[in-house]
Amino acid sequence: MIALLEKDCGLRRKAEILRWIESRGFRAHVTELPDAALVGVLGAGAEELAAALLALPGVREVRPESPPWPLVSREHHPEPTRVRVGEVTVGGREVIVAAGPCAVESEGQLLASARAAAGAGARLLRGGAFKPRSSPYGFQGLGEEALRLLQIARAETGLPVVSEVLSEEDLDLVASHVDLLQIGARNMQNFRLLAAVGRKRTPVLLKRGLSATLDELLLAAEYVVSAGNPQVILCERGIRTFERATRATLDLSAVPVLRGRTHLPIFVDPSHAAGLRELVPALAVAAVAAGADGLLVEIHPQPEQSLSDGRQSLDLPAFARMMEGVRAVATAVGREVAAG
Amino acid sequence: MIALLEKDCGLRRKAEILRWIESRGFRAHVTELPDAALVGVLGAGAEELAAALLALPGVREVRPESPPWPLVSREHHPEPTRVRVGEVTVGGREVIVAAGPCAVESEGQLLASARAAAGAGARLLRGGAFKPRSSPYGFQGLGEEALRLLQIARAETGLPVVSEVLSEEDLDLVASHVDLLQIGARNMQNFRLLAAVGRKRTPVLLKRGLSATLDELLLAAEYVVSAGNPQVILCERGIRTFERATRATLDLSAVPVLRGRTHLPIFVDPSHAAGLRELVPALAVAAVAAGADGLLVEIHPQPEQSLSDGRQSLDLPAFARMMEGVRAVATAVGREVAAG
Amino acid sequence: MIALLEKDCGLRRKAEILRWIESRGFRAHVTELPDAALVGVLGAGAEELAAALLALPGVREVRPESPPWPLVSREHHPEPTRVRVGEVTVGGREVIVAAGPCAVESEGQLLASARAAAGAGARLLRGGAFKPRSSPYGFQGLGEEALRLLQIARAETGLPVVSEVLSEEDLDLVASHVDLLQIGARNMQNFRLLAAVGRKRTPVLLKRGLSATLDELLLAAEYVVSAGNPQVILCERGIRTFERATRATLDLSAVPVLRGRTHLPIFVDPSHAAGLRELVPALAVAAVAAGADGLLVEIHPQPEQSLSDGRQSLDLPAFARMMEGVRAVATAVGREVAAG
Amino acid sequence: MIALLEKDCGLRRKAEILRWIESRGFRAHVTELPDAALVGVLGAGAEELAAALLALPGVREVRPESPPWPLVSREHHPEPTRVRVGEVTVGGREVIVAAGPCAVESEGQLLASARAAAGAGARLLRGGAFKPRSSPYGFQGLGEEALRLLQIARAETGLPVVSEVLSEEDLDLVASHVDLLQIGARNMQNFRLLAAVGRKRTPVLLKRGLSATLDELLLAAEYVVSAGNPQVILCERGIRTFERATRATLDLSAVPVLRGRTHLPIFVDPSHAAGLRELVPALAVAAVAAGADGLLVEIHPQPEQSLSDGRQSLDLPAFARMMEGVRAVATAVGREVAAG
Repeated sequence: MIALLEKDCGLRRKAEILRWIESRGFRAHVTELPDAALVGVLGAGAEELAAALLALPGVREVRPESPPWPLVSREHHPEPTRVRVGEVTVGGREVIVAAGPCAVESEGQLLASARAAAGAGARLLRGGAFKPRSSPYGFQGLGEEALRLLQIARAETGLPVVSEVLSEEDLDLVASHVDLLQIGARNMQNFRLLAAVGRKRTPVLLKRGLSATLDELLLAAEYVVSAGNPQVILCERGIRTFERATRATLDLSAVPVLRGRTHLPIFVDPSHAAGLRELVPALAVAAVAAGADGLLVEIHPQPEQSLSDGRQSLDLPAFARMMEGVRAVATAVGREVAAG
Repeated sequence: MIALLEKDCGLRRKAEILRWIESRGFRAHVTELPDAALVGVLGAGAEELAAALLALPGVREVRPESPPWPLVSREHHPEPTRVRVGEVTVGGREVIVAAGPCAVESEGQLLASARAAAGAGARLLRGGAFKPRSSPYGFQGLGEEALRLLQIARAETGLPVVSEVLSEEDLDLVASHVDLLQIGARNMQNFRLLAAVGRKRTPVLLKRGLSATLDELLLAAEYVVSAGNPQVILCERGIRTFERATRATLDLSAVPVLRGRTHLPIFVDPSHAAGLRELVPALAVAAVAAGADGLLVEIHPQPEQSLSDGRQSLDLPAFARMMEGVRAVATAVGREVAAG
Repeated sequence: MIALLEKDCGLRRKAEILRWIESRGFRAHVTELPDAALVGVLGAGAEELAAALLALPGVREVRPESPPWPLVSREHHPEPTRVRVGEVTVGGREVIVAAGPCAVESEGQLLASARAAAGAGARLLRGGAFKPRSSPYGFQGLGEEALRLLQIARAETGLPVVSEVLSEEDLDLVASHVDLLQIGARNMQNFRLLAAVGRKRTPVLLKRGLSATLDELLLAAEYVVSAGNPQVILCERGIRTFERATRATLDLSAVPVLRGRTHLPIFVDPSHAAGLRELVPALAVAAVAAGADGLLVEIHPQPEQSLSDGRQSLDLPAFARMMEGVRAVATAVGREVAAG
Repeated sequence: MIALLEKDCGLRRKAEILRWIESRGFRAHVTELPDAALVGVLGAGAEELAAALLALPGVREVRPESPPWPLVSREHHPEPTRVRVGEVTVGGREVIVAAGPCAVESEGQLLASARAAAGAGARLLRGGAFKPRSSPYGFQGLGEEALRLLQIARAETGLPVVSEVLSEEDLDLVASHVDLLQIGARNMQNFRLLAAVGRKRTPVLLKRGLSATLDELLLAAEYVVSAGNPQVILCERGIRTFERATRATLDLSAVPVLRGRTHLPIFVDPSHAAGLRELVPALAVAAVAAGADGLLVEIHPQPEQSLSDGRQSLDLPAFARMMEGVRAVATAVGREVAAG
């Protein structure tokens, strides 16, 4: 539920309203808008307070039917949120491309990828350090060593880095090395991990689960934001369907649907969705045309020798060509992409 | 299975090869390429003939592992097929937009839609005469009267018309009134209807079934082509998944996947996939960016009064705005759209 | 919408009520219950008549929120419908097993199957004459010859026969040879075919489409019943999901869900759902435990030589063993199965 | 990959074989069978060692194509595994029913449920202490207080208890209070949590993820077993599909499919799959008919006042009636259920 306070509602009155809400077992979250303060009343059953809340002095309007994810909703925060990742602003006019290898394998592999990414216009460097693998016998990533290599690559190229965190246990370590914390699709409903990254200051890239509805993705984002971290980027990466021509089915409708429901920026990962590198360029430009604020793309200097997901990684020249197409389409829809 | 004949394989030898194939219970389908003739050997188990066929004089190469839809495969026909619909060429550099009401409701409604479609750069007019409805109590379309109105609209605007045929019984009637026969998603595996349109000369727009894989769509197209009608356009229109924010999940990966597998042109219908008009423009430009050869879009002069699917129809000004976006993105990907 | 008339509502008054409904553009369907007549008011928007209808003399109650498939709903017809197939009653205490080959291939194959089916306690013989095949090059069935063989098998074993009809064109032919007309999953929304079998007297076995919701299955049944044929059996046969360990995912929840919504009998086809014969016995007994009124099972004297779907056909001894399990579980849930 | 050693392969030779494997970067897992030792060679690419391994003295046979989940495969361990939960044996002739409230809400609620469960023949008590909730504002469970109440209920009824663990952080706490650790569907691919419970001695109930294939479920179980804990029970609880008549689609084919692939016991949770209490009894008996080793059923003294998932909880008399049906069907398929 959302309440709007009167323009001239003073600090003291505001404090009384918040205490009133909290004394009834709910949490209150205040956002200062130019012409009013907006109060999110958080907790199951909040809408039963509506009439009593409206009767309090200083309350101008109460909207009981706000969505179950009030903090991330457009109603609560009509302006698009811009997320700062290092020097890069996500959610503005610029379409931000994050590129890099699925897993960091070696300094040579990572630096070659990072230079090519930067050279083609990518603004963020991605690279897996801790890899979630279906099989206990799969390559699980280089871990801390990979995080160290990511810092070297950042120092050399200037690109802020994004990498996945798999568990609360690794969180401090990963957060101290990266500029953007990725929560992977398999952990989208690992609610403890969501709350834990919500207590950090590092921005979060939250990927949609393989069978998560868009409302569930927004609820997962609400976990992070309600725990205190408003810097969340959503990422569509394909859902699981009956079709097997692709690894997952990229749901590009997610972009305009989420745009209508939330103020958070929206990324698209065509690499994991397609699972086949030859499909990535077409899906990347389609995502930008649909309105995505950014892309997450896997690249590798020698995809055929990749230790994980090589089939879906672009080689470096193919990535540079893809970026030309992305740039042209971004311009056509009134956005821009950094020069290569 | 596909066989390539030698360049200098004469008519007589060619005839012997075909007789040999047919005497073994298979069908043979010849395509003349610039430097050779290509023979599709059609029928289950054809690959067992491979060695014997290769031993025949005049046969240069045999490819036993050709896909189960040889006639529509890229291997059989490397050049893109161009389908002529009236004066319009589908499958060339131009992206063709077909627009019109879900169902023809009246002369006024249809003509207003047709003029707006033509004025904004659409090249084909769509309009339902016979409507497949989940409920026996739903509006089933104006039938023959709608076909007559479509001809009036064509005469006035010059736009060739596309309309759905639901059954063999109506086929002659519909085919005599329209320029492009639509097979709807629910009939994609109505194999008798596929074979029947395959015996016609009218081009066919074949929509993907709600739970059809892309291979099944290609097999459905093979039904039409193998029955004698090579003029087939495929159409992605959303598949059924767990997500309910949209009516269906538009699978834009279908465009590059199909492009790699078949020479047939590929349309996308964002209206039925989304089910919500506010999502249509974003999905339309995404489809063009992904490489679609055309779009199928529902428009209505007064969507809120529509007798069917009003929620997904664009009003006429919104369609004109959408076309501007489509034109810009088409240019960005090296295609073009008719001027509005 | 459903209306209940007063107990003493005479014929003349009843006729007036029906004329009143029809003069407003709706259809009326009367069912005589022991203590009242029940009138289904059919057509979109019928609920707007509710108040005026209730005001008519002789009308006791009006239920505007009846489901969109009034004729097949439990509300319209609280007692379970029993469908007569030859001498066999479907929908009573007895669980009816229909068994036979996927496709009729020869007199020997069919008769061996039919004798084994009858010997093990099956009460109906299934056998495909016209086969819907994804590929135009697959075996399409023996057609009319198969229908003739089914009649021979029926004469010898006494088992009524069920076979699929693919198109309106074949309907008279098939209906004149079989006791139960099967509408396959791919034709569940071939609305013209549904209406056509609705105009016949032969009972209908209607299979759920691969991506049809249960409400859509009930609407499909409503097409048949509202066209005049109340003898419909529903059949769950698996839906399309992401799981590939089985050909489709058998949705046994369909049995209790449908039981709550409709008075029509419910069959289950474990063979097509599983696609693997080793899974069929477990799913068959599970279906009976869940409350199914019957089973559709594929058997073959030599499954490995079958021309279609051999991988899912039980051989004859395995079928006999399955029937023992089915009999035991049927008894445990208060039903019975014919002796072997 | 799996290797079988010769019957008379002595300890010393066995040690050499294991060292040989480990020196090549793979792990070896030995199971002593009556007539031989079986060695699982674990790690990606193990099959490349096949020829060299077979050449070693003492190795009788090497099976390179063993499934990617060797330790949980039937090939590795042909006999069914029996899991001991307190005094209860899971995986034997007895079908084990675990019943209790979705969430522990109070001592009164839990004890009433536990007594009714025991009285009707349940052998395990379930009760949520830490609840995974889609919304951050939902009831998250009583936590440690709930664990204390579960111990009181166990003391009174003698039923071993099962409760979910959401994170590594809570693992020691939960494991010290329960007899069976549940990993919920949303955590099936929380690989760190899987490995952590694999390092415990407490048996594990592993639920299938909403969009997990059966092979992925087996890989998740392999995570637990390969970390050292062989006491794993699998649980089918419904998958996410397009159908919305039920909360999820119960995939009962999972029971015979898993039976063929693994030696681990298999439970079914009809409550979460259906989401509607009126469907639970039919699905429970169907699961037992299909061969399930146990059931997980939600019950509540006053379901309509439940703090979570009340719509799917049976009240206590309905549970007792369900158990009578379960008992009858279990007997019919050669199993048994404890007396009520």
